[in-house]
Amino acid sequence: MSTDSPVGSHRVVSPTGVLPQAADKLDTNPQIADSEARVSVERLNLDAASYRQLHAAHGGDGAAIRAEVLGIIERRGKMHNPATGSGGMLIGTVDEVGPRSPLGLKPGQKIATLVSLTLTPLAITDGLARWNGLGEQVPASGHAILFARSIAAVLPEHLPEALALAVFDVCGAPALVRRVVARRAPSQTTVAVLGAAGKSGSLSLAAARDARAATTLGIVRDEAEAARLEQTGLAARIAVADATDPIALSGAVTDALGGRGADVTVVCVDVPGCEHGAILSTTTGGTVVFFSMATSFPSAALGAEGLAADVEMLIGNGYVPGHADYALQLVAAHPELENLFAERTEARA
Amino acid sequence: MSTDSPVGSHRVVSPTGVLPQAADKLDTNPQIADSEARVSVERLNLDAASYRQLHAAHGGDGAAIRAEVLGIIERRGKMHNPATGSGGMLIGTVDEVGPRSPLGLKPGQKIATLVSLTLTPLAITDGLARWNGLGEQVPASGHAILFARSIAAVLPEHLPEALALAVFDVCGAPALVRRVVARRAPSQTTVAVLGAAGKSGSLSLAAARDARAATTLGIVRDEAEAARLEQTGLAARIAVADATDPIALSGAVTDALGGRGADVTVVCVDVPGCEHGAILSTTTGGTVVFFSMATSFPSAALGAEGLAADVEMLIGNGYVPGHADYALQLVAAHPELENLFAERTEARA
Repeated sequence: MSTDSPVGSHRVVSPTGVLPQAADKLDTNPQIADSEARVSVERLNLDAASYRQLHAAHGGDGAAIRAEVLGIIERRGKMHNPATGSGGMLIGTVDEVGPRSPLGLKPGQKIATLVSLTLTPLAITDGLARWNGLGEQVPASGHAILFARSIAAVLPEHLPEALALAVFDVCGAPALVRRVVARRAPSQTTVAVLGAAGKSGSLSLAAARDARAATTLGIVRDEAEAARLEQTGLAARIAVADATDPIALSGAVTDALGGRGADVTVVCVDVPGCEHGAILSTTTGGTVVFFSMATSFPSAALGAEGLAADVEMLIGNGYVPGHADYALQLVAAHPELENLFAERTEARA
Repeated sequence: MSTDSPVGSHRVVSPTGVLPQAADKLDTNPQIADSEARVSVERLNLDAASYRQLHAAHGGDGAAIRAEVLGIIERRGKMHNPATGSGGMLIGTVDEVGPRSPLGLKPGQKIATLVSLTLTPLAITDGLARWNGLGEQVPASGHAILFARSIAAVLPEHLPEALALAVFDVCGAPALVRRVVARRAPSQTTVAVLGAAGKSGSLSLAAARDARAATTLGIVRDEAEAARLEQTGLAARIAVADATDPIALSGAVTDALGGRGADVTVVCVDVPGCEHGAILSTTTGGTVVFFSMATSFPSAALGAEGLAADVEMLIGNGYVPGHADYALQLVAAHPELENLFAERTEARA
């Protein structure tokens, strides 16, 4: 492959002219181009929205979930859930590095990919035999390809593998929250996080505190989550509300913040229908950051218009320079995050 | 209706607990609540993405398109295309104003609604008999309901009705472009507009000039559009490229801007698949503003991550205070926009 592209266009099988993420099918040929690297896969971490959809579609039948994941990977050459449009990430060992790969990797290093599985060529060789289909963490054997512009992080030795993977998976969220808070006057900025007891939510809260936000409000769905979040001490205030009920949610947020909407609202709830509640919960001139892959673009755009809401709405970009290191720093500074993440990465019943 | 909500929740028939835009069905009862106003409908202006989808789905068969639009309105109590999630807006005469309506309207005034048809209760009484199904402008009789937080603009007397409606339909775009350019250092900010010969695109170009951007680049799909845009004099530079081909598009943008991506990229192309090209066309630290309702949230979020692109991505909010007046000002300052809009609002073959 002499015409390898830094963004992987040369691996697109169909349709022609698109980038790997938009492709129906990728070429998983293990022979690497000069700018590529090949990774021996050990574990996949499915995106939360994707796993939730698969779990619901198969009524929690693990064997059926496993068969569908395998089918998707075989058909598409990547783990790209067609229903949610999302993927996840993987852990593995560097196998071979092309002479022009700029990633700085060496064979034998254990790494996590920080680009989505939706654009990563992936072939599975063990039929996912070690996975029972129940849970986002998927032990797997096979190989994956990294392009010149892919991002991978060498795994820190002091953290359990599953924990590091889960942290990396959502590491774009805290980095962007820090940036959004820092560019306002932090000491006058209130931050509300929807889905605050989850992975991206709890890291977003930690980032808001780190950026010295005036106050942080964690919104959770029930009392059990509230208790879990309370234990971490990450949220200055906690309220229970259904994020898909705009009236109830905005009432809970404004009550908790003294009668005013949040300056920054961070959406980390991976279910559809949270757009209007997030918009209504945000004060005029404020910012909504959508991290959930279940976000609907038209629903957000038309919702803000329909509510005459002058709020800035950001699509949560999973890439901010230094995001992986920053997320690891937050975990080191808040050991309580480790417990919360450990609970979240266990298999689901 | 004594429990009328400013955002219209009391008009939601199903499902319960959602706002009107997210509802399957709205109540179109012509009897207004104290905070509402009723409008006698004269004309609908369908959203471009919605009309394009309807036109394609029915192979350009006008009678079939008309039947489907009528069916949607009857079934949902609003013109909310389920396939695209988008609607449009309408023109009409104020019929009755509730004693607590804050909109400042008077019976007999001719107005355009500036909130989406996807959340506006609407009933049609003439079977759309005056419309041949070919074109976004739909003569219609019936009634619509405005809530306390709806937005409506009194039609200016000096502009043709269809032109004013078309301008209002996209007036959020120029207002947001002005804001995004103004908060950077405008004299060092390059602005690329994809779909620059269209309605929102041409107004976005005019706004970028008005905000004193360093340069403006209009991207169009073919030479005919390039000639049309050239005549308006709105774009400092013009290039022809397919916005759904990321490699070709980003090459065209960087070529036109002296080897660098745009600081601000504005997406006004109402077809799916423009996310990756827009991201690749934007320089590090730049901003992409997505106005197209065909934008896919996961495609944008994961695309930026997959390309390791540190760009800010904004969901184009259709509401910015003063947006309607600002768009009318731009049209008054650039009479050439009037011709371009007139062409765009004629019936399609």
